Amino acid sequence: MSLIVQKFGGTSVADIERIEQVADKVARFRDDGDSVVVVVSAMSGETNRLIELAHDVQERPTPREMDVLLSTGEQVTTALLSMALNKRGVKAKSYNGGQVRILTDDSHTKARIREIDDSRLHAELEAGYVIVVAGFQGVDEHGNITTLGRGGSDTTAVALAAALKADECQIYTDVDGVYTTDPRVVDGARRLNQVTFEEMLEMASMGSRVLQIRAVEFAGKYNVPLRVLHSFQEGPGTLITLEDQTKMETPTIAGIAFNRDEAKLTILGVPDMPGVAHHILGPIGEANIEVDVIVQNVADDKTTDFTFTVGRGDLDRAEEVLNKVAGEINATEVRSDNKIAKVSVVGVGMRSHAGVASQMFAALAEVGINIQMITTSEIKISVIIEEKFLELAVRALHSSFGLEKEPENESAA
Amino acid sequence: MSLIVQKFGGTSVADIERIEQVADKVARFRDDGDSVVVVVSAMSGETNRLIELAHDVQERPTPREMDVLLSTGEQVTTALLSMALNKRGVKAKSYNGGQVRILTDDSHTKARIREIDDSRLHAELEAGYVIVVAGFQGVDEHGNITTLGRGGSDTTAVALAAALKADECQIYTDVDGVYTTDPRVVDGARRLNQVTFEEMLEMASMGSRVLQIRAVEFAGKYNVPLRVLHSFQEGPGTLITLEDQTKMETPTIAGIAFNRDEAKLTILGVPDMPGVAHHILGPIGEANIEVDVIVQNVADDKTTDFTFTVGRGDLDRAEEVLNKVAGEINATEVRSDNKIAKVSVVGVGMRSHAGVASQMFAALAEVGINIQMITTSEIKISVIIEEKFLELAVRALHSSFGLEKEPENESAA
Repeated sequence: MSLIVQKFGGTSVADIERIEQVADKVARFRDDGDSVVVVVSAMSGETNRLIELAHDVQERPTPREMDVLLSTGEQVTTALLSMALNKRGVKAKSYNGGQVRILTDDSHTKARIREIDDSRLHAELEAGYVIVVAGFQGVDEHGNITTLGRGGSDTTAVALAAALKADECQIYTDVDGVYTTDPRVVDGARRLNQVTFEEMLEMASMGSRVLQIRAVEFAGKYNVPLRVLHSFQEGPGTLITLEDQTKMETPTIAGIAFNRDEAKLTILGVPDMPGVAHHILGPIGEANIEVDVIVQNVADDKTTDFTFTVGRGDLDRAEEVLNKVAGEINATEVRSDNKIAKVSVVGVGMRSHAGVASQMFAALAEVGINIQMITTSEIKISVIIEEKFLELAVRALHSSFGLEKEPENESAA
Repeated sequence: MSLIVQKFGGTSVADIERIEQVADKVARFRDDGDSVVVVVSAMSGETNRLIELAHDVQERPTPREMDVLLSTGEQVTTALLSMALNKRGVKAKSYNGGQVRILTDDSHTKARIREIDDSRLHAELEAGYVIVVAGFQGVDEHGNITTLGRGGSDTTAVALAAALKADECQIYTDVDGVYTTDPRVVDGARRLNQVTFEEMLEMASMGSRVLQIRAVEFAGKYNVPLRVLHSFQEGPGTLITLEDQTKMETPTIAGIAFNRDEAKLTILGVPDMPGVAHHILGPIGEANIEVDVIVQNVADDKTTDFTFTVGRGDLDRAEEVLNKVAGEINATEVRSDNKIAKVSVVGVGMRSHAGVASQMFAALAEVGINIQMITTSEIKISVIIEEKFLELAVRALHSSFGLEKEPENESAA
């Protein structure tokens, strides 16, 4: 007898057949006596169809109208899923963002949720209804339709779970959980029964893209137990929790994340004076280029080398900006390299376990991989290496930290 | 400097190209200084696409969910038209039924409008916006999405015009006005500059299907000046007004309407006793079959013949019901005929002009057409004839009443 929020993304509701399968799954939870709120995305392809229509009209469509347009995609799915549930004898009602009163700010196409009025939802749940809510959308204080941006349905689900104080927020996706690393790279990759919000954040941002980062942050902030599950397979998935909720001792390392979408830019012989980092990165930010890893080396007394990484798609533009900057600050040279990749070991346990970094560097050295850049955070150590060594590095680290073995203190869910 | 409500149906917004043309038209009215509210339908084909999706899920889709589903069609059009207007530098905002607060009863898929909150609309109009409203939809008092049924966009437009006290409600369609009869049947058919609500109602219900009957009734009730115009051609169209608003003397006959979708059922040798009409028509009504013309002839002292017409699609079902009834009331025989048609002369002027009926019957006799049934109302005389004579009858009547000539007292608009 739990209150569960379930989220099904676009591929899980891609056609009527899949919507029927989702209805079967929801009906089983209802049969078990759970109260269920379902959050759905637009049927896959629908959002792109609508975006194309808009672009046929306007090169840069009015954001307010874009939201009015796109929000219809999820609404269609809510109606169809409610019908499929009704057909199974399950009482269900659809609600769009405005009706549930998911109040957002007025930043059209990338709105942020402010507040949810849960009174109506509670009343419908008490009356025995499954509530099917359109993800990704809300209304501003004037009742204008807003959308949360791509992937916003995860955020809708977590926000609803928080507002309703749900027992669990289940995110259904095309993987059966969070893995120690990508199973396509390492055969021994293992599904984690549990992972912390912080680890999940690092894993997600590093390329294990199972969940929207915003949703994970939101779930962490409001302490919503989040579970990642496979839409069409049975299994316990992976539970994402606050660190202090885990009764067992935390394993040192949760997993190995990696990202191929990295390119490196180095500006050499930069006069070493205050404000130079800003002088270099300011124009990059203004050009809307996101910077990932930043490293600065003092080469000699008077000059410094400054290196940072960007997404590969931004490399050409970043280089252009940087060449201009180099002239202005009398740097000697700009170099770029897009044959790099980032590999990270992630785990909240490394806070209290010394030696993770040295174990990581030793493992890489053992297979002859040269490290180009290093950056560390409280629960993550990342290295930039040559791209061709990526798989080798991931396998070496996965094995070195013993991730293929079920930890003794983690029971199977 | 007028306030105009304009309604564009599905074929007028069928694709981006047409939406652009509609935007051009709306922009011209704005340039002339008019305040404009635009009501749009779903892009043609879209509603059927959504209905098919629903039927793939549920044979008889839940009405509440059907409304949630179908209402997205109009919403898409509002966003695209608003974008097209914005592109032209015309300030425009889209609103769906719930946002404008078109309050309806809760009869899903066939709701009736109760009330419109015009405060927000007035504020937006004063701020110089063109308001693009999704037709065909509203919300009930609990905020559930409702739809007004097929063709409900006309009703939305008229209701908005009434609420806003608009100077004119313009219904754009694929004809350039209301004609004295179908131009495909009579070469000399002439566009009417003006027609009364009552005449329009009779013309519409008789097959000159330009406007939804409900919308015309609504416009008559709230005295909204209604104009029928062509979406993509210039021209004054036809103004539909209250009789007493026409300053000029009303011509006797406004037009000749006709309907091929008629089938006749006769039950012969019915014992002539009180309640027999109810005994016959009761089961027909219960079977949801609409009856049009009804005539009862007393054949001899003790029995009567009872004849009525139904839509052709209902003939088989009606005959089945009637055969059962015939046995119960000891009638001698049931006969049916689906090779009939109805022709009507319509005009508010006939109230004060005697002799319309005799002129009509004379004109038909002159070309050798036999009349099977006659029915009259205050502003209409209808006859049922053999279908093969339909065109002949319409032409004879059109000519006999001199409809091809512009009346002397009706100035060109």
